Amino acid sequence: MLTSTSDPLPSWRAGATRQAITEFVQRVTADGSPELVAREERVAVFDNDGTLWCEQPMPIQLDFILRRLAAMADHDPSLRTRQPWQAASTRDHGWFGEVVTRHYQGDDRELPVLAAGILQAFGGITVEDFEAQADGFLRSAQHPTLGRGYLACAYRPMVELLGYLEANGFANYIASGGGRDFMRPISQEVYGVPRQRVIGSSTALAWEPGEGGGRIVRRPELDVGNDGPEKPVRIWSRVGRRPLLAAGNSNGDLPMLQFAGQPGRPGLRLLVRHDDPVREFDYTAGAEQALQQARANGWTVVSIDRDWATVF
Amino acid sequence: MLTSTSDPLPSWRAGATRQAITEFVQRVTADGSPELVAREERVAVFDNDGTLWCEQPMPIQLDFILRRLAAMADHDPSLRTRQPWQAASTRDHGWFGEVVTRHYQGDDRELPVLAAGILQAFGGITVEDFEAQADGFLRSAQHPTLGRGYLACAYRPMVELLGYLEANGFANYIASGGGRDFMRPISQEVYGVPRQRVIGSSTALAWEPGEGGGRIVRRPELDVGNDGPEKPVRIWSRVGRRPLLAAGNSNGDLPMLQFAGQPGRPGLRLLVRHDDPVREFDYTAGAEQALQQARANGWTVVSIDRDWATVF
Repeated sequence: MLTSTSDPLPSWRAGATRQAITEFVQRVTADGSPELVAREERVAVFDNDGTLWCEQPMPIQLDFILRRLAAMADHDPSLRTRQPWQAASTRDHGWFGEVVTRHYQGDDRELPVLAAGILQAFGGITVEDFEAQADGFLRSAQHPTLGRGYLACAYRPMVELLGYLEANGFANYIASGGGRDFMRPISQEVYGVPRQRVIGSSTALAWEPGEGGGRIVRRPELDVGNDGPEKPVRIWSRVGRRPLLAAGNSNGDLPMLQFAGQPGRPGLRLLVRHDDPVREFDYTAGAEQALQQARANGWTVVSIDRDWATVF
Repeated sequence: MLTSTSDPLPSWRAGATRQAITEFVQRVTADGSPELVAREERVAVFDNDGTLWCEQPMPIQLDFILRRLAAMADHDPSLRTRQPWQAASTRDHGWFGEVVTRHYQGDDRELPVLAAGILQAFGGITVEDFEAQADGFLRSAQHPTLGRGYLACAYRPMVELLGYLEANGFANYIASGGGRDFMRPISQEVYGVPRQRVIGSSTALAWEPGEGGGRIVRRPELDVGNDGPEKPVRIWSRVGRRPLLAAGNSNGDLPMLQFAGQPGRPGLRLLVRHDDPVREFDYTAGAEQALQQARANGWTVVSIDRDWATVF
């Protein structure tokens, strides 16, 4: 536990949520605590979209993909009559929403069309070229309604929490359903999370021999879809330990939240609740089961409206 | 560069190999060096079998697997007439050798039989149970000819090299064709490499919900076979950077060795040559192309006979 007198969590309002966090950190880190956890076991995992930065009106990466699909259709007119390029080039964002909604309703007839388009959008390029594209987009594009650049859409209280945990010996990992290689160029700067601690979805990669150490190129196939029950698997695969703390905001984070903590060891589960239509967004769609499980299990629900003095 | 007067590499004899290592580290770490590399970019990757510990007369993990297959056949007589259990229970190690030799000759008819047996041998158990089995084996089993326990089969000069690199700001990763979860229980103790920096082959895993955070169980399917061109892919996937230094000993390490270093940045490639029949083993089988490439490209060949004052 830090003994500095300066508040490490200034954007968190006093209350039960803030207290749950600081008491948990005290329990697992204070010298002499009966529940002291060795430093190397202090692993914390964070979902990204909707947990560390905002995901409305659409996930930031979807904006990146739509712009790329539209640019492809600009360049190749034959794509303009094929999905998903048609929807992207006519700014028909409703089509994307419908595909996703139908997916959650069990109808996946259109999903392969969308997935194939997304995978083709960045297929065949090197990981360095993809990183440059993602980096350029994230540093230049503006959020459509919040009046700020995307890199300024990270939640300040969560960035403070990451710093507070790190100062108390935790290793923070991002465990996102979003693309691993999309987040890596900015994870250190925005979150203080180094790129080797970013776990996310990924496309298949292939190494091709050649000058200068060869190239790693993106293949138009999914490698890992890091959501739901895959999150604990990929956390284990990367870290080799169970997390002590997990933070998420949606049903896809439920397995990861359940996975945090082991029998006989303290664990903290944080569920961010989007209930602030003025400063951020107000929605529970896609989080119904997670909120129900949080109530049933006594997990800590973080209300953006009540618990955060500042959002960004 | 460490300025301590004590020799960080006492098991390395003076000579061109040792000098190549220390000069490389000096070039990329010394204040004011024109080739100084930022600390977070100092990534070193090491193959395990034959590079960090011995792999003759058979890879250590193969001994672990054979004992498990034999135990299964002891318990279930119907397995004793089926491969690979028959060969394991009759100690017919030649059968295993033939399958592998035929594989390198392009005949993979028997390989699925072996692979299926290996995957079934540990299928359905939790990652914690597998770790306990691997840990127990590694701490108790003896090398068949060297008169030492397996944990004492790590090469002392390589362990010193790992420590020397770490002291100079490098992050060392193991990038092995062997099983990631087989090495993790001992990687910190034997090599000073923490478990999150162990990259290796892996079986598919599945998270199952349940009390105490649920279970992660091994499925009888290969997830990643981390050899050859897959090594650069998995290094990139885990680390998100190209390595500055790579060390291997066989043809399967060639892509990883080629991958180390980027255009305009220094890189060091080490190839361990097994040429010491007295203290270790003398063989080039499976390393022919690697040795040829090392000569052609001026990589640093580490002769166990000439460069190491002490092997274990």
